[in-house]
Amino acid sequence: MSAADQYQAFKQLGLKLDMSRGKPAPEQLNLSNALLDALDGYKGADGTDLRNYGGTVGIPEARALFAQLLDVPAAQVVVDGSASLSLMHDVIVYHLLNGAPGHAPWVREPVTFLCPVPGYDRHFSICEARGIKMINVPMNQQGPDMDLVEQLVAQDASIKGMWIVPKYSNPGGVVFSDQVVARLAAMKTAAPDFRLMWDDAYRFHHLGEHKLAVANILDACAKAGNPDRAFVFASSSKVSWAGSGIAALAASPANIAWWTKHAGIRSIGPDKINQLRHVQLLKDVPTLEALMEQHRQLLKPKFDAVLEQFQQHLGEVPGVSWTRPEGGYFIDLVTPDGAARRTVALAKEAGITLTPAGAAFPYGVDPKDRHIRIAPSFPSLDEITKAAQGIALSLKVALAS
Amino acid sequence: MSAADQYQAFKQLGLKLDMSRGKPAPEQLNLSNALLDALDGYKGADGTDLRNYGGTVGIPEARALFAQLLDVPAAQVVVDGSASLSLMHDVIVYHLLNGAPGHAPWVREPVTFLCPVPGYDRHFSICEARGIKMINVPMNQQGPDMDLVEQLVAQDASIKGMWIVPKYSNPGGVVFSDQVVARLAAMKTAAPDFRLMWDDAYRFHHLGEHKLAVANILDACAKAGNPDRAFVFASSSKVSWAGSGIAALAASPANIAWWTKHAGIRSIGPDKINQLRHVQLLKDVPTLEALMEQHRQLLKPKFDAVLEQFQQHLGEVPGVSWTRPEGGYFIDLVTPDGAARRTVALAKEAGITLTPAGAAFPYGVDPKDRHIRIAPSFPSLDEITKAAQGIALSLKVALAS
Repeated sequence: MSAADQYQAFKQLGLKLDMSRGKPAPEQLNLSNALLDALDGYKGADGTDLRNYGGTVGIPEARALFAQLLDVPAAQVVVDGSASLSLMHDVIVYHLLNGAPGHAPWVREPVTFLCPVPGYDRHFSICEARGIKMINVPMNQQGPDMDLVEQLVAQDASIKGMWIVPKYSNPGGVVFSDQVVARLAAMKTAAPDFRLMWDDAYRFHHLGEHKLAVANILDACAKAGNPDRAFVFASSSKVSWAGSGIAALAASPANIAWWTKHAGIRSIGPDKINQLRHVQLLKDVPTLEALMEQHRQLLKPKFDAVLEQFQQHLGEVPGVSWTRPEGGYFIDLVTPDGAARRTVALAKEAGITLTPAGAAFPYGVDPKDRHIRIAPSFPSLDEITKAAQGIALSLKVALAS
Repeated sequence: MSAADQYQAFKQLGLKLDMSRGKPAPEQLNLSNALLDALDGYKGADGTDLRNYGGTVGIPEARALFAQLLDVPAAQVVVDGSASLSLMHDVIVYHLLNGAPGHAPWVREPVTFLCPVPGYDRHFSICEARGIKMINVPMNQQGPDMDLVEQLVAQDASIKGMWIVPKYSNPGGVVFSDQVVARLAAMKTAAPDFRLMWDDAYRFHHLGEHKLAVANILDACAKAGNPDRAFVFASSSKVSWAGSGIAALAASPANIAWWTKHAGIRSIGPDKINQLRHVQLLKDVPTLEALMEQHRQLLKPKFDAVLEQFQQHLGEVPGVSWTRPEGGYFIDLVTPDGAARRTVALAKEAGITLTPAGAAFPYGVDPKDRHIRIAPSFPSLDEITKAAQGIALSLKVALAS
């Protein structure tokens, strides 16, 4: 049977699957259903009534937990509401309107960010929406093309920042090498207030047997004499519940003071009761790692199923490749030039909604139209197996037409 | 015994009371301890898994609840996290960086806000921190001096907004008359993108027997041909828990679409589980009103105690007056010119921390140094009675020195 015939037969299945986002599956959310239980008390360890106003930096217990998890001093961590994306957004807004400590507000001059590609669409949306120009930087196996990054930041003072997903990157699954981390921390930047937006979104989200580690960027920056360069972001979104977790920011003491001042204008404090719920649930590093192992048991078979289908249907197709991630939430399917958009459209016709082709690039434009982000987490194992087959057939048809 | 001697005797009591903020008392927070109970389910009425990502505008049930409470269509309400202050902040940030629909970003030109005084210090802090100039407008019994407001907004296109607490205002307890609401909605503004920041913080927070009502500003604006003029803010902060409630924004359909677009850049959605908890707790208008009546029972005696002490100790002192609020969280103690700051300092020496004199004015400057904000809610009845006496004695000593 030809690929076209197989594709037509697949369409007849009448699948209806939304794989556009990296959402946890209900079975993963069930792992944290203890959050539904009655809460034992409403006071912090220091006696604070957590129901009342106050506490811009988060409760001490939650700061201590994220300090352990991120390997930084608790005084350099603030814990906030459910979305680390909001912390990233606001760090940029405060830079735009108020400026870094001792520096002018960014908004007075053109601002540019470097964007390793393919990358996370919501990072790029923040830049696009708030008037920040973006420059693509290619990703290699060890991280972004550092020769290019060093050259760009050294010569252009309008380059004020760079997006980073240092581990199991979205969508390429790249794990930054120690050398890349060291170069990012130490490189000379024309802008004295250059910032690394270090989104450690998948720090605990291993798929392989080995828990890969990435060098500590705050330590590296401090050692290189650039202590205020990096803002580190993390959250419990894909640990507990995606919509009701807690998020953290880690940075230098000066940056924490700066953030606290500006965040204190926006709010009297985050939801401290939900922080208490999470401290009781996640407890410490071993407890969290045991929970993440349960996530891994649910996720690994889905990733394996996609890889198996791709191997079976696309293994012999020239110019097609895909990532085999050691962690994170995505597989990057790479097509020959000009085939990604058509493949996504064909998959859509067959009932499979994928992230729009190009979404992993600034302005939604994949210059060579080659990348398709696959998010295996949400569908069931049976659904994702079928879907991977349908995507593979869609790509084959796209290449044949 | 002279006032000076009485003050010295009072100091010997060694009181230690923080009355600087309008925080609910623990007994008030206890009224909502059902929020600690196990949650019955995690799905919305429409079947949505509320644990997962999504839902920028809030869950339908919470939107419907605030629609009832604010007397607006549910489609014109969004429900967010715990702080309405954050909604206000972000509405201003999106105007600064992106502009109102069809208008230029505010940040390109000088921006001014009108600030009825005395008013809420955190409103003024947002302006000061984000580079917005402020102009004082005196408050009268019925609302701000509308002749002055109309004159200012008609002539100065840099005036882009105005802070409003329409009911039981902080700290003066003013309830806006229908005529003031109508004039605010209909007045000609030189700026086409002029905005009313309508902070309906005390909408349900009655102290008197009668539940006073203020005219619907969104209706008034629509009727006057200025449908996009007002953003209405409310929250459950002083209904359920101050630090872990839910907040709402109501506005015209165009403004809701604009807000949703910009908030969607910042976050994938608010904590929907906490919204579900609140919908189960607050249910509907009668349930919420019954809860607010319990708050009233706790708050009224404290306000009465302050008023009684003031009457007893200050009733005969020329030039001293105070408000007798019908609702809200504050009493405004008005001193003769130049005595407020000194009184606050003397109270501090006697162990009573008050909101800094001047805090109710932009830039923290009360031009005549006359207003002291009294927040009776948090201390016990016994404490607040003593504190009111101490404040009265402090004022008498300030006037005698």
